[in-house]
This record gives sequence, structure tokens and C-alpha cells, in this order.
Amino acid sequence: MIVVMKSGTPEGEIARISEELSSWGLKVEKSVGKHKIVLGLVGNTAELDPFRVQELSPWIEQVVRVEQPFKRVSREFRHGEPSEVVVSTPNGFVPFGEHHPLVTIAGPCSVENEEMIVYTAQRVKAAGAKFLRGGAYKPRTSPYAFQGHGESALNLLIAARDATGLGIITEVMDTADLEKVAAVADIVQVGARNMQNFPLLKKVGAQDKPVFLKRGMSATIEEWLMAAEYIMAAGNPNVILCERGIRGFDRQYARNTLDLSVIPVLRSLTHLPIAIDPSHGTGKAEYVPSMAMAAIAAGTDSLMIEVHPNPAKALSDGPQSLTPERFDSLMQELAVVGKAMNRWTKESVNSYQLPVVSGK
Amino acid sequence: MIVVMKSGTPEGEIARISEELSSWGLKVEKSVGKHKIVLGLVGNTAELDPFRVQELSPWIEQVVRVEQPFKRVSREFRHGEPSEVVVSTPNGFVPFGEHHPLVTIAGPCSVENEEMIVYTAQRVKAAGAKFLRGGAYKPRTSPYAFQGHGESALNLLIAARDATGLGIITEVMDTADLEKVAAVADIVQVGARNMQNFPLLKKVGAQDKPVFLKRGMSATIEEWLMAAEYIMAAGNPNVILCERGIRGFDRQYARNTLDLSVIPVLRSLTHLPIAIDPSHGTGKAEYVPSMAMAAIAAGTDSLMIEVHPNPAKALSDGPQSLTPERFDSLMQELAVVGKAMNRWTKESVNSYQLPVVSGK
Amino acid sequence: MIVVMKSGTPEGEIARISEELSSWGLKVEKSVGKHKIVLGLVGNTAELDPFRVQELSPWIEQVVRVEQPFKRVSREFRHGEPSEVVVSTPNGFVPFGEHHPLVTIAGPCSVENEEMIVYTAQRVKAAGAKFLRGGAYKPRTSPYAFQGHGESALNLLIAARDATGLGIITEVMDTADLEKVAAVADIVQVGARNMQNFPLLKKVGAQDKPVFLKRGMSATIEEWLMAAEYIMAAGNPNVILCERGIRGFDRQYARNTLDLSVIPVLRSLTHLPIAIDPSHGTGKAEYVPSMAMAAIAAGTDSLMIEVHPNPAKALSDGPQSLTPERFDSLMQELAVVGKAMNRWTKESVNSYQLPVVSGK
Amino acid sequence: MIVVMKSGTPEGEIARISEELSSWGLKVEKSVGKHKIVLGLVGNTAELDPFRVQELSPWIEQVVRVEQPFKRVSREFRHGEPSEVVVSTPNGFVPFGEHHPLVTIAGPCSVENEEMIVYTAQRVKAAGAKFLRGGAYKPRTSPYAFQGHGESALNLLIAARDATGLGIITEVMDTADLEKVAAVADIVQVGARNMQNFPLLKKVGAQDKPVFLKRGMSATIEEWLMAAEYIMAAGNPNVILCERGIRGFDRQYARNTLDLSVIPVLRSLTHLPIAIDPSHGTGKAEYVPSMAMAAIAAGTDSLMIEVHPNPAKALSDGPQSLTPERFDSLMQELAVVGKAMNRWTKESVNSYQLPVVSGK
Repeated sequence: MIVVMKSGTPEGEIARISEELSSWGLKVEKSVGKHKIVLGLVGNTAELDPFRVQELSPWIEQVVRVEQPFKRVSREFRHGEPSEVVVSTPNGFVPFGEHHPLVTIAGPCSVENEEMIVYTAQRVKAAGAKFLRGGAYKPRTSPYAFQGHGESALNLLIAARDATGLGIITEVMDTADLEKVAAVADIVQVGARNMQNFPLLKKVGAQDKPVFLKRGMSATIEEWLMAAEYIMAAGNPNVILCERGIRGFDRQYARNTLDLSVIPVLRSLTHLPIAIDPSHGTGKAEYVPSMAMAAIAAGTDSLMIEVHPNPAKALSDGPQSLTPERFDSLMQELAVVGKAMNRWTKESVNSYQLPVVSGK
Repeated sequence: MIVVMKSGTPEGEIARISEELSSWGLKVEKSVGKHKIVLGLVGNTAELDPFRVQELSPWIEQVVRVEQPFKRVSREFRHGEPSEVVVSTPNGFVPFGEHHPLVTIAGPCSVENEEMIVYTAQRVKAAGAKFLRGGAYKPRTSPYAFQGHGESALNLLIAARDATGLGIITEVMDTADLEKVAAVADIVQVGARNMQNFPLLKKVGAQDKPVFLKRGMSATIEEWLMAAEYIMAAGNPNVILCERGIRGFDRQYARNTLDLSVIPVLRSLTHLPIAIDPSHGTGKAEYVPSMAMAAIAAGTDSLMIEVHPNPAKALSDGPQSLTPERFDSLMQELAVVGKAMNRWTKESVNSYQLPVVSGK
Repeated sequence: MIVVMKSGTPEGEIARISEELSSWGLKVEKSVGKHKIVLGLVGNTAELDPFRVQELSPWIEQVVRVEQPFKRVSREFRHGEPSEVVVSTPNGFVPFGEHHPLVTIAGPCSVENEEMIVYTAQRVKAAGAKFLRGGAYKPRTSPYAFQGHGESALNLLIAARDATGLGIITEVMDTADLEKVAAVADIVQVGARNMQNFPLLKKVGAQDKPVFLKRGMSATIEEWLMAAEYIMAAGNPNVILCERGIRGFDRQYARNTLDLSVIPVLRSLTHLPIAIDPSHGTGKAEYVPSMAMAAIAAGTDSLMIEVHPNPAKALSDGPQSLTPERFDSLMQELAVVGKAMNRWTKESVNSYQLPVVSGK
Repeated sequence: MIVVMKSGTPEGEIARISEELSSWGLKVEKSVGKHKIVLGLVGNTAELDPFRVQELSPWIEQVVRVEQPFKRVSREFRHGEPSEVVVSTPNGFVPFGEHHPLVTIAGPCSVENEEMIVYTAQRVKAAGAKFLRGGAYKPRTSPYAFQGHGESALNLLIAARDATGLGIITEVMDTADLEKVAAVADIVQVGARNMQNFPLLKKVGAQDKPVFLKRGMSATIEEWLMAAEYIMAAGNPNVILCERGIRGFDRQYARNTLDLSVIPVLRSLTHLPIAIDPSHGTGKAEYVPSMAMAAIAAGTDSLMIEVHPNPAKALSDGPQSLTPERFDSLMQELAVVGKAMNRWTKESVNSYQLPVVSGK
């Protein structure tokens, strides 16, 4: 952090400020120019609010943060190397990461009954998905809307996994449910509305399952990375960042604004794998295919796509769900771009060899 | 909800759609015009997604919601009458509502130690505040920033209440902490980041203390009211809605965009009392006074203002906190507008007579 | 501007960068600390893009702007003193500014015919307005909507001025129309959609009539002040800044988000007078009164309010227009807050004495 | 448009409203249900403000628009067929449109001198671009920044066209300059800041050169299409819609939010060709390649990319410009996706045969 002093600041004031800053545990480095004096603050400035420093003296012209506030999630933390999140599934280990093939996650918004979830799992597996998504606990705007079948739906997810060998990803909304969810899920999802539910972030950080962290509806990139930092700081290095559309000023056609530019931005800032959810990102099934194509071309590591056997009868999010048939054909379209980008594979996931030390 | 059929829709198709909608528990009322047929859906349409109806047939031209999705929070629910939230404090009952004097809530962002919280409580009480705010559990962007003293801070709030008789308002962030927080708080706060933490909303709705519900950073008015609906649907009628600034495209000077137009908008939509927090709303102490003045003139029922004995040393949110001295003078400035608006009182709060049936 | 070099930057690289920056006409001042070297750039850095400096070397850690990019509009430009914009009207000189009574501007969105504009002028004058607003050239989203009566409407505005002595404010949308508009208007308005129409800004800056500069729909405070800077740089010091609502994510109830926090923000940054337009700011007549009240309490210097004799039949913007009767009663409500704020006057505007040198 | 009447509306009131609406030139079609009466309005409702209808009676429950407000730009206007914009260049006719190969436009932000513009033109032509972009008139936030060389730069663009045969696209900012600009340009650009400069839209609509219409920074899709409607209504059918990034809440890394979802949205709404500008869309050269890849995969018809021989010395927009070398390699990367999408061609543009009647 850099403190720029106004021209003509008295020596005594600079000494006073430096002393105060030292008492905060910071090392203060004074640089004297002809017109201005600049104080460089060395130490744990990541958590320091620049405004707090500004308040120290009316002689301070400006306080400028020159460090990123995140550490463990930063690309530098791994010396520029991407991390990989390797997830164990009945069908084998599936790695997410920059140097791995694209991983497709598909399934319905919510788990409605055993037949539909097992059938959907079979269909998305046949089309090439490696993970089944499906909500047991559902965040719904209205208290009168279907809230998910909760614990009983978790058992249905187990049935779907047993039937297909797909990995399971499902959302946890409350710290009180984490144990139950993590017992079933191969990847635990933290939804957009909970991206800054800090008690939840701490708890998912203190357990072992990989975490799929959706971006909050109006979260900045920095806030999103800080949320991931919460998880990593609590001990869990296996975080996947998922963009799912941000809130914009025009919601007439697409419900959210899918921000695909996060792909190159995150790539330069963090080592963590990146996923894109074009279903929530647009809110409308007919926009999903071209946004999924775009995400692959932009370099995403993973796609999450909603598929429902009968979207018109879905208990939630029907309008943005693809039918299994449309998903089949979409996967073939995606393969064309995926192959062009060298991110597509037909080989069995079982062939992946787990590294001795992974993602840590 | 209204379903507009395309010109030339076959009779059979209309029959099929009507049957399907009836099977959803809706009554379908057909209106035949010269060119178009319009189906009116009667019943529990509040929780019905218009897109789901749209999917029923390609002959449907448009589906239009003509009902509000909220019920208990709506102004109509009380036949146009505002509700009042009456809070018991050691100093007496304090009513929040359109027909009552403005209620001022003041105090620090977080409870730092006994001396500072008791001192601040004494100062804000002397200046005219009826409630002390102070965070025990703090939502912080960074995992490395001060997270609040938690449970031990709750005891310090009790000390401050004992010393002053002020009511206590403090935030709950996790369902696991609700019991502890509600045991101490006279009003339980749900923060902006948790406005759509639905498990938390359900739980605060299932206990007795009034709830102070902050608007989420990018929550629409409708989403905010639906969050209040969660609380009311769970059984708690005592909800106060607090605007605290929304996320905008310009954060260079004011950190958030304080949306004062919610005051007339909410007044027409809901019976619930309205509060404004100009401290978080602007993020900068120097902007707080004029926004507090504006809020009173626009008709707010309550103000929440951050006050800290030494903002430059505050463990959180220092830049937006007023000193006790500045708060003293602000209260005198506010009195001028408050009196002009007939929303100011000098009389002791003890004189308020609790109605036999309150807020229910 | 400050350039922070990475640790270990070679001496030669710093010399090379300094030389390059000097060739851009900047004075480079090197400050050497123990760990880092900081280059301070002195000179005309207001127009320098920090990214351009960043590109100079991979050894540059960060480039930080520490100056405001605007000059003439800055509060410092007048040594902290507010400017006043004094407008000549048939009824006398009317001053806009921090130390003057609130100025009310009222009238219809567009000039429809002589009878309606003269009648409206008479009514708003009787209620206390000093200026009549009325559009001859109208920016309309649709090419098929009423576009204003253009030149012929300018003559109707003259008739209204002749009948009432009110000053006239009307919008110019095209450089080709400026001469005609400025011949009639006492204040020339640049609308929100033209806030960054730079040829137009230059031209209104090169003529003598005061300019009413509305904030662009998604303009930052800085961009808005830079637009005013265009006008002042072209020679015209008489600029009034008008907030009229910005684009937000929730347009279901209020059409725009009226950003009243610009009042304290602008007050600290600029000497220019401030106006608020709650009619466009909310888009709905029923929200106008409380936002007008709030604007006065927050310290606005002027209000612009839409009044139409028959809003339901208005050719444009009917829904946000007040009837003359509602405007009468609103002015009485505003007087209560205006007097409390010491910004209200009953004395004739003719009593205002034009200073020898005004607003320059 | 549909008018829903409240339950119990008196017959006389419905008659009165119907009469009033008829006097506006609308046909009113009454549909009587058991509980409610619905009025369907037939006629020129595209330009009717629903709020104006709402004002007619307190018995009106809701007014709902069921038509799109645009006509000529709508996909239906061409019975579902995409239009093509065929541009004459010295190298031959170049068609923009859904059924044609991707067209690449490249060049510097502004024309700085003859050497740089000719050199850049040669380089981008060699890499595969069909058009040279380059600004003569530049919209700049600051009045003190380089404003473009104006008319003299137009001559330099002619030199670059003569040297390469590339088509020229350049921006017009003022109606006063249109004749000069259109005399040189093969495509006339209307920039984001002028998207709702209606006098300019009318004038570019009344001349013959194709128009490249950038989306305004906070323009909704509907407003953007209405701006194109202005051009088409004035007689010019040759409009290309270009997304260049919208204003969002997070500008720390990418300056704007490139909204690629416009591609499927526009495709379903309009017949007009679509272009994407990832350079302004992100504001940073390093993010341009992946966003260009994504745009092709999502189905764009054209790309506009900034290329400058020496970005660090560019007079404007250096940080987002690619070097000619980077552009060379990018074009090879784009070819991979372009070929996979069947939108890439190596054949000479001269082989394109102009249809007898084009784009009308």
C-alpha cells in the first residue's frame, strides 16, 4: 500500500503517521521526492482498508492499494501453474483444469423423483457427461414455490449414481445440512446466493469434498476470489469457480448477463479451474447452445448444463432446461469446437491416473 | 395470469391447454374476442412461473402475470393500513411505522470491547437514538479481516443495554447462531448478503423477535418483498425493511447507490415499516448527513447510522462511521427536517402505550 | 501519477522508462525506498491513460492516478467557493447556486400547442416556478413516436415567456439546431442521451446561454464532470448539473434509479450548481413528491418537475407528469422542507442584484 | 396491447374507456370472462405507452404490451429470413450475414499519420481482414485528450484504401460531418455514445452507405433495435449491429462486460447481421483473443478488432490494441474455430457475386 503525502507536509506529521502505522504492525518505507513524499507500507496490508489509513491525517493526499487482497487463490501462489481438481467418481477419477479435457456436468435443476433422476442420469451419461447435477435443497425466490425434496432427494441421487457411475454435484444452502450433503455429493455446490455466506464457506472449507463455487449475482471478480480464499484458507484446496450470469440492466430476453470474459480474467489471476453455466446464465433453453459453444472457445474447463426429461413439467427452471434429445445433439455440436480447441476426449475417464499428490 | 393465444389457434388446442392447466389446480376462464382468445387463470398463480405455461403450446402468444407474487407483505393484506412493529426495550416500547415518530438506530459496525460499546451506547442515547447497533458476527469480504468477537460480543451488548436501556439490534449470519443471537437481541438483523439465505429467513420467521431485513446488494424490490414474505409465511409478522445501498456502475466516490426511491415504492406496495442506512448506503461519513436528511424528507420510518468513538481505529467500516460529536450535531440537523415532516418527538419513549393487539 | 516498480528492477530499465516519460513532456521524480522504487510523474497527467504507461515495461508493478482528470469544474478551481449561474429572465435575474434559494423549473415534457404551453406556464408560475421547461425537439426511443414540433414549438415557448415572464429552458439535440434553440432559450438543455455528444458539448460551450447538463443514463460522476469540463473548456462557465436517474437492474416500479447521493458527492468535487429531476428520475408521478422533498433536504440547488394540464393525454411522458393542481400542493409541501433548510424564498426574484462579475 | 379491468368495473366505465381508446385510432375488442373483462387493443399500439392507458381509469387493473415495438428490423419483417449487407470495396463485394463467411474488420482506434495507417492496413489485409477501421473523429472522455485529426484523417484513410483495396469503416459523430465521412467511408459507423443520437440516426438512414451501429453502453436490446429501426425507417436497409461491451458493476479487470448472449438473442429477434468488438468489449489486449474465439463459436457474422503498430505509443486506446504480429497469430487461431463453425473462407472476396437486388 502506498501513501502519498500532500506537498508541504510537516516532518512531524510524517513521523506521527509512520509511528501510528508501525503500531499496526506495518513496516513504513519513506521515499522522498522533490515535491512529494511517498510512504510505502510493507506487511500484511491485504486486509487493510485504504480508507482507514486515509483517516489518519488531513495531510494524506491519497492511499493506494498495490497488492491483490487474495493469496492462496492467486496464480502466483502456485508460481504460475494451474491447479487441477481431481474428483473421484464410480467411473474413475475426473480431473478439472486447464490442461485437461473439458468436463461436462448435466442434469435437472431439482431432483423430482427416482425415475426422472435415474433416467436423466442415464441420458446425460450416454451423451458424454461425467457428472450429474440435481438439487435436493433449492433456493427459491418465493416461499410458496417448490423448495426441493431435501434429505430424501439425496437418496435418489445415490440411486442415480449407482445406476450410472456418474459423479454427483448438489447444492448445500445451510451449514446445518453440510454433513448430510457432503456424505452424498462428490462435489459440493455453493450457490450464487450463498457466495458470501461466510459461515458456510468456512464449513465447506473445513471438509474434504471439492467445492463448486458459483459467482454471486453481483459479485465482482475480486469478491468471488475472496470467497474462494475463504474456502482455501479453511484448508480445502479443491475449488472450482463457476460463472452463472450476473445481474444486468436488461432482463427482457436473457435473464442474466453471462460474463464469459471471466475466463481470460480468471486465467490470469488464479490457478483454479473455471466452469460456465449457460443455463442459469441466460435463463432460456434456446440461448444455451451458442453460449456453451462460446464458453468452450473461450477456454472454459467445465460446462454445467440443465437437462430435464420434460422441461414443461419441471418443478423448477423448466424454461432453461434442454430435453435429453437436444442435449444429445448439443454434445455433438460442442465436440466440434471442443476438438478444434484440443479440449475434447472420447477416451474413458478411467484411464486418468491419479497423481500421488493432487491439487495441494 | 393471462394467456394470450395466437390468431387461428384450433379449438382442440385450447381445450388441451385448458385441461392441462386445470390439472395444475387452476381455474381457466376463456374470453373470446373477434381475433384472439384470452385465457384467464384463476387460483394460486402467485407461485406459477409464466415460462412454464408458455412451454405448453406453440400456439401461446404470450403469458402475462397480472398478480403480485407476494401476499402477506402486500399493502392489500392489511386493507391498505400500515403495520407497526413495536419493540420492547428496557426504556419502554418503541414503535416503528408510518404513523409513528422516526426511530434512530446508531452504533458501531462491530462490538470491539466493553468500554467502547458502553461508551458509544451512552453517547448515542444522549443524542436521541432508541436502539444500539453493533455486530458480534461480521460478514467480511476477506477471511483475513476481523470477523467479529462472536458470542463474547453478545455479552458486551447486554452490558451496553444494561447501562443505557437502549434496545439492541445485531446481525445473525448462520442458522446455528440464531438462538444465541435472538436471546440477546431486541431486533434480529438479517444482512444484505443473507437476504436470500432462505434457511435463515425461515428460521428467523419461526422465532419471536422482530426482524430487520436489509436489502440485498442487487435485489429487486420484488425479491426483497419475497424475502420478507418468507419470514411472514413462517409466522413472524414483525419485519422492518432496510435499504442500505445497491450495487451500481460507479463506485469511485460513493461505494453503493442509496436507492431512496424505495420509500415511495414500498409505501405503495407493502404495509411494513421502512428503514434507511445511509452509512453503508454511501460508504463515506461525509455523505451520511445529507442522505439521512433526504431519507427523512422522503418519509422513512427509521434511520440506522454508524457511530464509532474513533473511526480511524475502527476494526471495521471506519470510513463510514461518524464520531459521537458529529452524530450529536447531525441529530440536531435531522430534528429540523424531522419536525418539519411531523416525524420527530422529544417525548420519552416510555410514554408510548402498547396497543392491546400489536402488529399482527 | 505514480509508477511503482517491481522489486529488483534494473537501473537501466528505470532510466529507459524515465527517458521515455520525459519525451512525453512529463517530469519524472524518482523516490528510492529500501525495497521499491516509485516514480512520480509531474505535468499534464490529467489526460494520460495509466494503461499506456503500464505498457512501457514489464518491470512496472502498477500505475496509479493520483490526480482528478478535470480542472475547470473542480471545486479547487474556484478555491473552494461555489459558483453561481445567474440567468436573465423577463421577471429578473435568477441565480442558481449553493448560497441561493432553491430554483424550481416546471412544465410539460413537450410543447404540444400554444394553449397548453401558455396555460401550463401560468399555472407553474403561480405555484412559484421561475422557469418553464418544454421540449421542441424530443429524443424518443421509437421513430414512430411523437418527435416534438421542432422549430414551430420554439415560437410557442416565446409566447409562454411573453405571457408569464418565466425563463425558458429547452433541449438541443443536434449542433445544426443550436443557433435556433439558443435564440429562444434562456437556458439550453443537453439531455441525458447527449451527455457525451462531444461536438454538441463543444458548441454549447462556445455560445453564451447557460447550459443545463443532464447526467447520462450510465455516466459515472467523473464522466459527467468531464462533459461539463468540455463546455467550460470551450469558454462557457455557466453550467448546471442535473441528475435525472441512472439505469439500474430493477425497473419494475421506478423506471430509473434517482441517485441523490450525487448531491454531497458533487458538492465536494465541483463548484457548479446542482439540479435534480425527480420526474424522469422515477418515471412515475406518484413517486415524484417524496423524491422532490428528499432532494431539497439533501441540498439540491434546483428542481425540475414535469407538469402537464392533462397527463393522460400528454403526447409524451404522461405517466410521470403532475397535474397543475398536484403541483400547487406539492409546492406547498416543498416549502415546508425548503424553509427548514433555509433554501426557500417568497420574495420576488426581481430583488436579486446581479453581481458586477458573475459566475466567471 | 391488453387492458385487464378490475372485478366489478361498471359497464359505463368500460364504455367510456373504449370510446376514449377508439378516439386514439385503436380498435377495442372486449372479452368477457366470468370474473374479469379484458380489452384487447388492435392497431398501431407499437408506439403507445402502456402507462398512458393505465391513467385512463382507476378501474384498470393492468395494461400489458403483447407486441414488439419494432417492425422493419424484426425477423418477421423478412418472414424469418436473415438479411445480408453487401458492401462494395476495391477488392470486391463483401457480404455480411448469417449465411456468409465471417468478416474481419481491423485497424487502429484513430488515424495518426499516413505511414501508420497504410502500414496497419497492409498488415491486417495480409492477415485476412476485409475492412480497415480507423477513427478520424474520436469521442474522448476528456476535452484535453487527442480528438482525432478530423477531415485530414479522412484523406489518409483514402490513401490506405488505395494502397490495399480494403473497405473503410469510420465513425461519424455529428450530423454536420456526415457528408464528408460518407464520401470516404464504405461503411459509416455510429458509435456507442451516439446510439440514441436520433438526428444522427435519421441522417445516416437517409444516405446510402451501410451503417455499423454500435450498442450504447447501457442500451437494452430493445432500445438498440429501435435505434436500428430509426435508420431503416429513414430508408437505409443496410444496418450491422455491433456489440462492444456494456457497463457493469465490475470494471477492475475488464473495462466493459462483453455481452455475447446478444448473438442468440438478436438472431431470434432480427434479420440484421451481427458484429462483435472484443477490443472495446474488454478494454485489454490480453482478453481479446479468447473473446474473439468465443464470438465466432457463438455465431457472430463479423469481428472488429483493434490493431496498432505500436500500442504503447497509440494516441488512443493503446491498452486494448493488438500488435500486427499478435493479430497475425490470432487470425490463425480464429481460423481453427471459424472452420469448425463453417464460417471461414480462404477464397478471394472477389468471387462473391452481387445479387441483383441486395439487402432490400
